[in-house]
Amino acid sequence: MANPSLLILAGDGIGPEVMAEVKKIIGWYGEKRAIRFDVSEDLVGGAAYDVHGVPLADETMARAQAVDAVLLGAVGGPNYDVLDFSVKPERGLLRLRKEMDLYANLRPAQCFDALADFSSLKPEIVAGLDIMIVRELTSGVYFGEPRGIFPDNEGGRVGINTQRYTTEEIRRVARSAFELARRRNNKVCSMEKANVMESGILWREEVQWVHDNEYPDVALSHMYADNGAMQLVRWPKQFDVIVTDNLFGDVLSDCAAMLTGSLGMLPSASLGAPMANGRPKALYEPVHGSAPDIAGQGKANPIACILSFAMALRYSFDLGDEAARLEKAVEKVLADGVRTADLMGPEGGTPVTTAEMGDAIVAAL
Amino acid sequence: MANPSLLILAGDGIGPEVMAEVKKIIGWYGEKRAIRFDVSEDLVGGAAYDVHGVPLADETMARAQAVDAVLLGAVGGPNYDVLDFSVKPERGLLRLRKEMDLYANLRPAQCFDALADFSSLKPEIVAGLDIMIVRELTSGVYFGEPRGIFPDNEGGRVGINTQRYTTEEIRRVARSAFELARRRNNKVCSMEKANVMESGILWREEVQWVHDNEYPDVALSHMYADNGAMQLVRWPKQFDVIVTDNLFGDVLSDCAAMLTGSLGMLPSASLGAPMANGRPKALYEPVHGSAPDIAGQGKANPIACILSFAMALRYSFDLGDEAARLEKAVEKVLADGVRTADLMGPEGGTPVTTAEMGDAIVAAL
Ligand SMILES: CC(C)[C@H](C(=O)O)[C@@H](O)C(=O)O
Ligand SMILES: CC(C)[C@H](C(=O)O)[C@@H](O)C(=O)O
Repeated sequence: MANPSLLILAGDGIGPEVMAEVKKIIGWYGEKRAIRFDVSEDLVGGAAYDVHGVPLADETMARAQAVDAVLLGAVGGPNYDVLDFSVKPERGLLRLRKEMDLYANLRPAQCFDALADFSSLKPEIVAGLDIMIVRELTSGVYFGEPRGIFPDNEGGRVGINTQRYTTEEIRRVARSAFELARRRNNKVCSMEKANVMESGILWREEVQWVHDNEYPDVALSHMYADNGAMQLVRWPKQFDVIVTDNLFGDVLSDCAAMLTGSLGMLPSASLGAPMANGRPKALYEPVHGSAPDIAGQGKANPIACILSFAMALRYSFDLGDEAARLEKAVEKVLADGVRTADLMGPEGGTPVTTAEMGDAIVAAL
Repeated sequence: MANPSLLILAGDGIGPEVMAEVKKIIGWYGEKRAIRFDVSEDLVGGAAYDVHGVPLADETMARAQAVDAVLLGAVGGPNYDVLDFSVKPERGLLRLRKEMDLYANLRPAQCFDALADFSSLKPEIVAGLDIMIVRELTSGVYFGEPRGIFPDNEGGRVGINTQRYTTEEIRRVARSAFELARRRNNKVCSMEKANVMESGILWREEVQWVHDNEYPDVALSHMYADNGAMQLVRWPKQFDVIVTDNLFGDVLSDCAAMLTGSLGMLPSASLGAPMANGRPKALYEPVHGSAPDIAGQGKANPIACILSFAMALRYSFDLGDEAARLEKAVEKVLADGVRTADLMGPEGGTPVTTAEMGDAIVAAL
C-alpha cells in the first residue's frame, strides 16, 4: 500500500523554519515507528506570489486536493501589504479553505503546566485549561456575496459584506462540535448574536435541531458572542467545546488562544468532508502568524507547528496514540526547561534556537 | 432659563433599582449644587412591551428625541425570550440608538485601584488601566439590509445579514475617537478585518483619511480585530482610544470590560450629532445587563449606572468638574471598603445593599 501523502506549504516569514522542525519529526516517525509519508512541498502566500504572481497557483491547489493532508506554515509579510486585496498572501489560505471545503476549524486552547505563568491571567484561572473552539471556516461574512466597495449616493463610498449561512452549513459544523464533545467532556456552547442578527437566529435554531435530533446526550448551551468574549476572560474553564461562525470564531479563538499566554504553542486543524479513502480533507497549521520581525533568526518557536502535525496524526491518520506520544514529548521538553525566546520567563530555563527545540523534541520522543 | 431635561428609562430587571440610586444623586446635585434637571420617566424593553405590546412606544421615542439626555437602566429578561425578534426588549434599545442617530458609543474600560484584585488578569496587567473604546453604534451588520431568514435552494433555510458602512458613517465616528484622544493620551487604534472584508478596507482608508486631513497630530495605528482581541488580553495598557465598528465593538468592548473584573462598575455614553442647543443627542447606560437572577433583591451594584450619570454631566452638560467630583466620591467609597455583593472579595469589606451603596456615595459627595 502506498504511504499516505502530505503536502507541505511552508509559506512566509517563520513558516519555513518552523516547518523544518516538523520535517525532523516526520523523519523520526518514519525511521523509528515505520510510519511513513510521501512528502511533497509547494508555495503559498507571498512566496507563491513572488514566483507565480498569485498567492496560490492552480497547480498547487490541485495538489492540495489530491493529498491526504496539507501542512501549512504561515502566510503574509510587510512586502505584501501593498498588494491588491485579490492577490494578498491571505487569499491563498482562504482559497485553500474554501476549495477544499474545510468547514470545521478546530482550535484547541490549552494551557501547558510548565507555562501557566506566561498567561496575563492569574494562574488559577488558566492552569489546566483545555477548551476546543470549533469555528466554521468556509462561509459567513468571509465569503458571502454581494461584497465590495461601491460609490454611494452622497459622493462617497460604501463598503459591503454579506453574512450568509444555510441550514446545511450550520448543521455540518455543529455535528463536528458534538462529535468532539462526546470524546471530551460532553458539553457544547454555541455562540452568536441571535439578539441582533437573523443569521444568528438561524444558527441557534439549527444547532439546537442537530442537538435534539442527533446528539441529545451532549449538554448544549447558547451564549451571545459578546458575553462569550467576557466569559472567556472571566472563567474560561466553564467551557468544553465552543462552536461559532467564521467571524466570531476568528476573534474568539484568538482571544482564547491568548488566555494561554503562549501563542507559539497552539496548533489548529481545518477539516472537511471524508474523501474516498475515508480520511477527511484536512489542513493543519499553527495559530500564530508569519512573524516577519523574527524570521530567519532561529528565534521562532516550532512547537505550534509540531503540535499541528500531532493533530494530523490524530485526525487524518487515526494515530491518536502517536499524537499523544508527540504531545508528551513536547510537554517533557517544556518541563525540562527548554525554552525558545518567546517562552523565556523570569524563572529562566535553557535558551534554545528553533532547530535546537526541534532536536530536543526528537530526542524526547 | 429652563432646567435641562432628563428622560429616565429604567427598563427591566435591576434597571429600576440601580436607577433609584441615580435619582438620589440627581437630588443631591439639585439641593447642594443648584444643578437642577427636569426629570421625567417612561418605559422601555420588557416593561414597555407589557404595557404597550412593543418594547418602545412611539410616544416614548418622541420624548427621547425632545430631551437633553436619556438615562437608561437595562432591558431584557427570561419572560421575553419567547417573543418574536421584532418586539424583543433589545429592539427598544436598538430603536433608540438608530432613531436618535447615536453613532458614537463611548465605553471606558477602567480599573479601579481598590478593585484590581477582582480581575481574572494579573494585577500588574490591569492596575491603572484606562482605555476608551469608541464603537460605531448605528450602522454595520446591526442595521444593514437585506436581512432575514429565507428558504434556500436545497429545502433548507438561509440566514442573511449585511455589513454596510459608508464614507460618512466611518468619518464621523473616527472624528469622535480623535477628539477624545486629544483630551487623553493622543493615541487611536482602529480595528477591523481589512484582510478579509472590503467594508474593513473602506473603514481603514476612511479612518486614515480623517487622520491625515484633520487630526495629523494624533498617533493612529490599525489592527486586525482578531489581533485586537489578543492584544487586549495580552497587554491592554498599550491602548488609549480604540475605534471600531458596531459588531467588533460589541465583542471587543465586552472583552475589555471584563479585563477590569468589575462589570458592575462600567458606564457608557452613546452620542449623536449636536442638537439646536449645541448639546449632542445622548443616551447613557451601564454596560451590564438586566441581571434578572438578582433583580429586586437589593443586591445590584448601582455604580455603573451612577457613573453613566457622571458621563452625562461631562458629555451632555459640560460639567466635567462635577463629573470628576462624582467619580471621586465613588472611588472614596470603594477605598473605604463599601461593597455590594458583586464586589465582595476575599479581603472582605463592608457588605451593603444597592440602596446603601447609593447612600454612601451621596454621603461621600
Ligand atoms: C490570515 C487571516 C485571513 C485568517 C483569518 O482571518 O481567518 C487568520 O486570522 C486566521 O484566523 O486563520
Ligand atoms: C442588548 C444588545 C442588543 C446590545 C448590543 O448587541 O449592542 C448589548 O450587547 C450592548 O452591547 O449594548
